[in-house]
Amino acid sequence: MSVSQTLGQFVANSDWVGMPPSLRHEAKRSLLNFVGCALGVANTPPIDRLVKAVQPFSGGPAATTIGRSERLGMLDAAFVNAAGANLLDYDDTHLETVIHPTVPVAPALFAMAEHRGLSGAEVLHAFILGVEIECRLGNSVSPGHYARGWHITSTTGVFGAAAGTARLLGLSAQQTTDALGVAASQSSGLVENIPHGGKNVAVGNSARNGILAALFAANGIDGAPQAIEGLRGWARAAGDVADETKLTGGLGETWELLKNTYKPYPCGIVMHAIIEAGLSLRAEYGLLPDDIKTVTVSGDSLLQARGDRIVAGAADARVSIHHSAAAGLMLGAAGIREFSEEIVMRPDVIAFRAKVLPELDDSLPVGAARMRVGMNDGRVFSTLVTHARGSIEHPLTDRDIEDKVRTLGGNRPDIGKVIDLVWNLDRQPSVGPLMARLGG
Amino acid sequence: MSVSQTLGQFVANSDWVGMPPSLRHEAKRSLLNFVGCALGVANTPPIDRLVKAVQPFSGGPAATTIGRSERLGMLDAAFVNAAGANLLDYDDTHLETVIHPTVPVAPALFAMAEHRGLSGAEVLHAFILGVEIECRLGNSVSPGHYARGWHITSTTGVFGAAAGTARLLGLSAQQTTDALGVAASQSSGLVENIPHGGKNVAVGNSARNGILAALFAANGIDGAPQAIEGLRGWARAAGDVADETKLTGGLGETWELLKNTYKPYPCGIVMHAIIEAGLSLRAEYGLLPDDIKTVTVSGDSLLQARGDRIVAGAADARVSIHHSAAAGLMLGAAGIREFSEEIVMRPDVIAFRAKVLPELDDSLPVGAARMRVGMNDGRVFSTLVTHARGSIEHPLTDRDIEDKVRTLGGNRPDIGKVIDLVWNLDRQPSVGPLMARLGG
Repeated sequence: MSVSQTLGQFVANSDWVGMPPSLRHEAKRSLLNFVGCALGVANTPPIDRLVKAVQPFSGGPAATTIGRSERLGMLDAAFVNAAGANLLDYDDTHLETVIHPTVPVAPALFAMAEHRGLSGAEVLHAFILGVEIECRLGNSVSPGHYARGWHITSTTGVFGAAAGTARLLGLSAQQTTDALGVAASQSSGLVENIPHGGKNVAVGNSARNGILAALFAANGIDGAPQAIEGLRGWARAAGDVADETKLTGGLGETWELLKNTYKPYPCGIVMHAIIEAGLSLRAEYGLLPDDIKTVTVSGDSLLQARGDRIVAGAADARVSIHHSAAAGLMLGAAGIREFSEEIVMRPDVIAFRAKVLPELDDSLPVGAARMRVGMNDGRVFSTLVTHARGSIEHPLTDRDIEDKVRTLGGNRPDIGKVIDLVWNLDRQPSVGPLMARLGG
Repeated sequence: MSVSQTLGQFVANSDWVGMPPSLRHEAKRSLLNFVGCALGVANTPPIDRLVKAVQPFSGGPAATTIGRSERLGMLDAAFVNAAGANLLDYDDTHLETVIHPTVPVAPALFAMAEHRGLSGAEVLHAFILGVEIECRLGNSVSPGHYARGWHITSTTGVFGAAAGTARLLGLSAQQTTDALGVAASQSSGLVENIPHGGKNVAVGNSARNGILAALFAANGIDGAPQAIEGLRGWARAAGDVADETKLTGGLGETWELLKNTYKPYPCGIVMHAIIEAGLSLRAEYGLLPDDIKTVTVSGDSLLQARGDRIVAGAADARVSIHHSAAAGLMLGAAGIREFSEEIVMRPDVIAFRAKVLPELDDSLPVGAARMRVGMNDGRVFSTLVTHARGSIEHPLTDRDIEDKVRTLGGNRPDIGKVIDLVWNLDRQPSVGPLMARLGG
């Protein structure tokens, strides 16, 4: 059997009753975090632009655009919700691949389930399966695929959305295989576009085209059996030879979703330890920004490569060592506000960033940071954060995720009800009530 | 300036008045050939399936699906028309890259022009520019890109459709640059899927996503300036370093569309010389199939690699040395009928194919074939075809293309009027009348 055939059979034959409770719960955590991220940006200019571009051409049946009043065609609602939830890189991360697993899959499933009046359990089940396919694809070509320039969330997300939608539609093993084959010819997205709108389009497309792949397969349009691993197939065209063990080994025994992590701060994940070092020194010693002379931040080469940069705006700040230190030490918080253009470019914040000095220390593990603060009066304070909150070793609690969603939900009076609905998704005969509340 | 910036400026600033007459005429030949190919398959099961899959989700404004009664949303009409015209590989070929240049670009432009009531000259101009961008992208990464598994018509077509649509919408140089950047993150399509429906989806997507790229750019969504040639951009992610001379050298001086060729037979282009050898021997010596004992077909290694295969159905027959010889010698014709499943699997045709023996002769140039026919009575007839009809050395005449379109148009009473409208496209204030006639 080819890879698509094995995966197609797995998805079509999977049994909800056998899903471990921990996995079901992790699916709810992922969806809750997703809902928060989508709500948090719903009414910002980048989302306005995406909606304005697709709305005149949007078809039926209409589906909810999270946090907005427009109901768009199912495909376009999935597109906008996916691009939105990923907009600030505040969503989840499968650390092995750096895939943000929920954004391509969940919006596709919510849109289809809303249209068909499907149950919360069906969505949770399809979501778990979609993420499994997506992350296995990613594992099989990592780290080369991303390093070569493929925006892996988009390129593997289309397979996840296709598999999940195929499951939701009740497609056969052969049809699910075809959906994966058709998805292969729709996989795209470039790292070069990450700071640009082109990235949001690619993320949105992974949800849209995943739905389309399943619809095509349902209508008898086939894909190559070896579309994933074949000589002229997806993995090799993109420069890799897929590791088939990672694609099909232990299917149904191990679950990639259990490795999902959620960000407490809306910025690059390797910056999180810096923020926490700053927050803890500030709190413990009552440090005042004006009394601080220098801040030395040590970390491994990945941190230095990603984070030592000139900050010309909010997008830079989200991957800046200097701004992350400023957020923790000077601002005492690291939410959406502290990474907004307005705060990032404030003269006193710019001045504080100039006090920060990155320093390579390759003895530190990935994701760790040491901070040494030199005061004007000569005192020095220092701390080391090895595993920041939100890491797999120090995961956000359910309550942490709820708090994040409450903050992102802003002044929505019914945010508590939204949170309840997600936690109880497996007991809802239809996702309709949740989607109705998520509208603007 | 980056590649996208140079190309964006070229497209936005191009002047219709300065376009050489030969180029305008070649554009009409390409569009006429396209219309014929789309009409020829309009009511076949593969197109029925594509329409059925997208119709329930199709939005406004409606546009013509060529040869069919359904009017679909502009994006879906472009999708179906592109997939359709390419379905039988009967369309055009830019030989340097093996791109079928018209199918991604023309349907995007026709759909948008129909919606906006734009003129024939505007469509011709945008088409010439779109094809130019598409083929330059292809030239810059050939032959590696296709060899590695990228279905180059789809992967470069999205840039051509984006550039052409941007021009049609009157976008600025910067917006056209953004459209190309966004297109880069939508480029996809795999050679592995060529015998499958996944290929038709990829070709259709190149038209659909090209329109979307232009619409996104028009709404202020940006792309990376170096999305094409950058370190994590399109060419490198797909495994090539783009040859920038081929991307931007001689812009406005040389025109890729002038290298376009049109197929007289609905099969692999390297099979054409075999068909003509068979047709000419049959006609010249009045050969009867039953009197033929053996047929030896010599050609270079490309012909052998592509064409020496078991024929299990129509898709195989279109790239079969054996069936191409049977079409010319036994059937005396090589149209859609002679490559249909019904004829291909007829027992006497199967029996005739068994008489055909491929033979390597690397002294022959690409595209040439020598045929030696051994008769039951011991006589031997032989001929060599170096440049088949439809090659760049022996192009189809305008009349040949008209005849092809008449045949493909079947029993449409107004096919003559359609042909007239295309030849006079530059004098039509709106493409509306042509599109109205192309409906089913």
